[in-house]
Amino acid sequence: MRRYSHLSAEVTALSLEAILKRVAGEVTPSASRRRAVSSVLERVIAGFERATATVKVKPSIRVGGSFAHDTWLPTDTDVDVFMLYPKEVEREEFERSGLELAERALADHSPVRRYAEHPYIEARLDQVIVNAVPCYDVPRGGWLSAADRSPHHTSYMQAKLTEGHKAQVRILKQFMRAQGLYGAEIKVRGFSGYACEVLTLKYGTFLSFVTEAARWSRGQVVSLEGGEERASLLFRDAPLIILDPVDTTRNLASAVSPEKLGELIFLSRSFLASPSYSFFRERKLKPLDSPPRHIVDNTLLLRFDYRDKSEDILWGELWKTAEGLAKHLEKDGLHVLRYTISAREGRAAVAFLISSLDLPEVLYRRGPDIFMAEAVSNFMASAARCSDSWWMGDDLRVRTVARADAHTAVDLITKYMKNPVGTVGFARGLADDAISTYDVLAGPRAYSSRRATDREALGQLAGYRFG
Amino acid sequence: MRRYSHLSAEVTALSLEAILKRVAGEVTPSASRRRAVSSVLERVIAGFERATATVKVKPSIRVGGSFAHDTWLPTDTDVDVFMLYPKEVEREEFERSGLELAERALADHSPVRRYAEHPYIEARLDQVIVNAVPCYDVPRGGWLSAADRSPHHTSYMQAKLTEGHKAQVRILKQFMRAQGLYGAEIKVRGFSGYACEVLTLKYGTFLSFVTEAARWSRGQVVSLEGGEERASLLFRDAPLIILDPVDTTRNLASAVSPEKLGELIFLSRSFLASPSYSFFRERKLKPLDSPPRHIVDNTLLLRFDYRDKSEDILWGELWKTAEGLAKHLEKDGLHVLRYTISAREGRAAVAFLISSLDLPEVLYRRGPDIFMAEAVSNFMASAARCSDSWWMGDDLRVRTVARADAHTAVDLITKYMKNPVGTVGFARGLADDAISTYDVLAGPRAYSSRRATDREALGQLAGYRFG
Repeated sequence: MRRYSHLSAEVTALSLEAILKRVAGEVTPSASRRRAVSSVLERVIAGFERATATVKVKPSIRVGGSFAHDTWLPTDTDVDVFMLYPKEVEREEFERSGLELAERALADHSPVRRYAEHPYIEARLDQVIVNAVPCYDVPRGGWLSAADRSPHHTSYMQAKLTEGHKAQVRILKQFMRAQGLYGAEIKVRGFSGYACEVLTLKYGTFLSFVTEAARWSRGQVVSLEGGEERASLLFRDAPLIILDPVDTTRNLASAVSPEKLGELIFLSRSFLASPSYSFFRERKLKPLDSPPRHIVDNTLLLRFDYRDKSEDILWGELWKTAEGLAKHLEKDGLHVLRYTISAREGRAAVAFLISSLDLPEVLYRRGPDIFMAEAVSNFMASAARCSDSWWMGDDLRVRTVARADAHTAVDLITKYMKNPVGTVGFARGLADDAISTYDVLAGPRAYSSRRATDREALGQLAGYRFG
Repeated sequence: MRRYSHLSAEVTALSLEAILKRVAGEVTPSASRRRAVSSVLERVIAGFERATATVKVKPSIRVGGSFAHDTWLPTDTDVDVFMLYPKEVEREEFERSGLELAERALADHSPVRRYAEHPYIEARLDQVIVNAVPCYDVPRGGWLSAADRSPHHTSYMQAKLTEGHKAQVRILKQFMRAQGLYGAEIKVRGFSGYACEVLTLKYGTFLSFVTEAARWSRGQVVSLEGGEERASLLFRDAPLIILDPVDTTRNLASAVSPEKLGELIFLSRSFLASPSYSFFRERKLKPLDSPPRHIVDNTLLLRFDYRDKSEDILWGELWKTAEGLAKHLEKDGLHVLRYTISAREGRAAVAFLISSLDLPEVLYRRGPDIFMAEAVSNFMASAARCSDSWWMGDDLRVRTVARADAHTAVDLITKYMKNPVGTVGFARGLADDAISTYDVLAGPRAYSSRRATDREALGQLAGYRFG
């Protein structure tokens, strides 16, 4: 720790202790909040009892998730209700009747069907979000559906987490949440609550965790049960591997984006270098508020409307779309330095930072490998129509250059949007809506938009302020 | 063959026969030319006899190369004279006294010291170039110096080449020469005469050779002695492997540039598609004579003077220099599509085709891997001085952008030339001369130069005409 700190060891220890004590106090649910959530849960269980009274195939109901693990944050309370079916129940019956039953049990609380790795029902009672998840009641490793591991996670955590651990999990979750790293959903691509629990079991305290994370190496394996070497082979290119103790063929960090992992490591080092309470309250990585001219002038914003859909599907489609657009802008001669996305309430924005919005005049085309006689001959015939000359590249592929037919990044986007799915792999689920509602803004015009989603995408684009 | 030809099989066979007969007639030395070269050789041998009369360590003299193989072209006659030393002679003695002896033997014919893979003496008598090469008299595989294989090449070819083969070797050499593919020296990076002999022994006739070369696959092994699999492992990334039958750990194609190999394959297909006598007389790959505006406008020419030096050293230095410059132009944000070089009589030119000569306004910097704590921290501190923000890349490296401080490719070259060796790896042997004589011309100004070397480099830059 001394490596990172400019303070004397004693002062650091003192202030650290005070900081973590203060955070722990804030994130521990009060007795009244516990009572409130328990009472919600009683009503939910009663609902399930009424609903199952009349069905033939009766699942057993078990409470899980952070509430059952006693690692929940008072400001953000999720309760999982597992509906465990015997494995004899057919898959089709299981999927249909499980969701119907949950809808009936939660009928008074506007239940909504959702889909992450598996289908489930979400409802909201007072400040509590209830997720009812059908799964099979199977022994460890005998998974029949994606949700079957969850009750085992609960059993595992209930057995392993001490009171001390629980307080530390809450501190870690609060840190992750304040820094935008909390949640495995596609929108965030960060760390799940369960991953935070496993990390705490591994390192013991929040302070040990940040100390270790600051020193992680590429391909780091975090395992409670050994098997590090096997895990490294299994997840060969993963920068971080957090093994699920309940299923050591699963990497709990696989949903974490490299960007979020890098930020976690950076923030761990920052916290150790100068520990502060603010890490648990405000984002330490702050977007640039007014980007310099050379960034503003080279920014491109594509925005469009979309029809309401599940967040996981929406963000999956948006990332695919942004990636396809960036890839094709590159292919057509631009240098895309970065792209960001934003979406809310039917409005989506994709922002690009490009080294220059003007296209180079000379467009470069690389033909096939000289050893593919037929393909080379076809390429030459087609290239001759828009180029004057060719040469042999040092990779043994034929090269041509032609005059570019688009002049700016805006021209290119406009061209793509005539057939966005076929041209750039725009997500099919967004394309129709996008074609009829899209808009491209370049440079200062993009920055003058007042739309929240535009401003969010642009706010991220320029990156974080130094210091 | 039918695959490549639009002519009927009969007409093709007829015209092919006539073409190859005509070429064979032209490349077979006449009786008078043979007598002339033999008489040169007699004078050379006599010179060696006189010179060795007085020395203690006497090498035995043996004639080799294309003249001894009887595969020489009448217009381009090289005679190799090997000076074979017993292996007991010390390396130092061998190097010094061998060259001195050859200089004395050829004293009347302006002998020059040269260096390719090994040192040798070159002299010119009438139209004949004589290369006197000291080497050790060792059995196959017992090589003590780089030249020791050569007498074995002569023995091998004298034993294997039939009269029929010799005529076919000459046709192949003439094809290679007319197409700019002949010669293994760094300036050409093509096929040596010996490689042409091995290819002819393998495929029997010129026609079989082009038929096979048109169909070669990547990593093709040409071997007279088997061992293809071992060769593929030994030269794993080589696109073409021509095993030296005298030393099967040597790839005779290793000096061939990918560009020249690709051109050979392309030309083989072209010849088969429409066979013509002109393939043996004029270059079929013709440079574009007047490049279109978008090429002219995006061309950069750096020219400078150099002090006389051996061709192999000069061209090695020029390629290194051009490569270093191209790499740094890329690093500084330009997209270098191609570069070419030219040099003659103290004047050198390096030409670049760039997708735009104007630099992008935004300069991109990629920092170290996030796992390298110290390096990341140093990078951030240094980046903060010229940038406003940073972000985490999906490769887990920190990124920044800054405003570029140079505006055009000419600015960049001018900057590099303040310290060309340190900045861009400019060849040390050229740098001093270049710093005091260089000149950068962009776009139409470059094309208006009348200097032969400038025009040559620019002529190659735009590539070959279609069709």
